[in-house]
Amino acid sequence: MKKQISENVIQRLPKYYRYLKELTENKISRVSSKTISEALHLTASQVRQDLYQFGGFGQQGYGYDTEYLKNSIKEILGLDKEHNAIIIGGGRIGQALANYTGFYQENVLIKAIFDIETTHIKGVEGVEVYNVDFLDEYLKNNKIDIAIISVQKEIAEKTAQKVVDLGVKAIWNFAPTDLYFGGGVVCENINMSESLIRLIYKSRDLEKDD
Amino acid sequence: MKKQISENVIQRLPKYYRYLKELTENKISRVSSKTISEALHLTASQVRQDLYQFGGFGQQGYGYDTEYLKNSIKEILGLDKEHNAIIIGGGRIGQALANYTGFYQENVLIKAIFDIETTHIKGVEGVEVYNVDFLDEYLKNNKIDIAIISVQKEIAEKTAQKVVDLGVKAIWNFAPTDLYFGGGVVCENINMSESLIRLIYKSRDLEKDD
Repeated sequence: MKKQISENVIQRLPKYYRYLKELTENKISRVSSKTISEALHLTASQVRQDLYQFGGFGQQGYGYDTEYLKNSIKEILGLDKEHNAIIIGGGRIGQALANYTGFYQENVLIKAIFDIETTHIKGVEGVEVYNVDFLDEYLKNNKIDIAIISVQKEIAEKTAQKVVDLGVKAIWNFAPTDLYFGGGVVCENINMSESLIRLIYKSRDLEKDD
Repeated sequence: MKKQISENVIQRLPKYYRYLKELTENKISRVSSKTISEALHLTASQVRQDLYQFGGFGQQGYGYDTEYLKNSIKEILGLDKEHNAIIIGGGRIGQALANYTGFYQENVLIKAIFDIETTHIKGVEGVEVYNVDFLDEYLKNNKIDIAIISVQKEIAEKTAQKVVDLGVKAIWNFAPTDLYFGGGVVCENINMSESLIRLIYKSRDLEKDD
C-alpha cells in the first residue's frame, strides 16, 4: 500500500531531511517538534502532523529520535538507493553541477556530461565527457535515472524529449523555461530567472514602504 | 494605494512575464487566455482572474494585447528599473552566475564578485573581482540592491547577515541552506539539493507503479 503524500508535504520533506541530517552530524540524538518548527519556520503542530505520516512518533517531553526519523525520511525519499545521472549542456552551469559534490551525499552519481563541443569542459573529475552525438548510444548502454538539462532555452524541450524517448524518466531542468511531461516522466524545473524576478518584486514593495 | 497580490499569484507572475516576452519577441500581438493557460499549464479561468489584477482586460474573441500586458507586468514586477547586484562566493556557481547574461535582460547588473581568494576567478567579463575584506568599504560606497550568496553552507547565514547589516535589502541565496530574514529584508532561496530530492522522491513513485 502506497501512502498518498500531498504536494505541500513533498515540498517540506527535503527540509526535514536536511535538518535532521545536520542534527545527526552534530550528534544531537533527540529533537522536539518545537525546535524543528523554529528552525524551519513552520508551526509545531504542522511539524507533528507531517512527521506522524512518516512514522515519526515523538514522545511527550522527549521529542523525536533524530537518527531514526532521518533514516525513515531518507527511505521514504528514495535516497537510500543510488541514482545515476547525466548532464546535457556543458556550459558554466552544467560544469558547476558536474563539480558539485553535494549530490554524491544524496546517492546521486553524475556519470557523464554531454555537449555539442567538449574541448572547453575542464576539471570535471570523475565525470566522463562526451559529444552529444554519442547520447543515443550511451543511453542504450547505461542505466541512467536522471537527466540534468542545462542547455539553452531554445533547445531545452527538444533535448529533454529526446532523453525521455530514450527511456529516462526523471528530468532536472536548469534551462530558463519550464518543461512539462505527461505520465510516467517526472520533472523539476529550477528557474533561476523567475526566482530573481520574485525577489525584485518583493524588494520593490520594500522600497515603497520606506 | 498598493494592491495586495497573493503569494500564489507572485509565483505565477514571472511565468506570465516570461511567456508574454516570448510572444512579443516573436511578433505575436494578441493572445487568448486559453493559449496562455495551455502554455503555462494553468486553467483559463485562473489566467483571466490573475491578469485582471494586473490591468489585463482581454476582449472576447480578441484576447489580450501582448505588448501592453507585458509592459504592465514588467512595471508591476519592478523590472522597468535597474537593480545593482553583487555576488559573494566565487566558486563555480558564483562564477556561472557572474557570467549569466540573462540577468542583464531583467535590468539586473552584476557589478562585482567577492571571495576570500580571488586568483581562481576568471573570465567574468564586466564584473569587478574583489577580496571579501573589501566588502564593507564597497557597500559603503556603492548602492547595491541585491546580494547573491554563493558561499559554503556553514558561512551562508553569517555572510548574508553581514551584507544586510551593511544595508542590502534583498538576498538571493544559492547556499544549500534556507535563509530567513525579518521585516525590511527579502530573500529568495534557490535550494538545488531540495529540488533534486523532490525529483528522486517523485521518480521513486514511478518505479513503484511499474
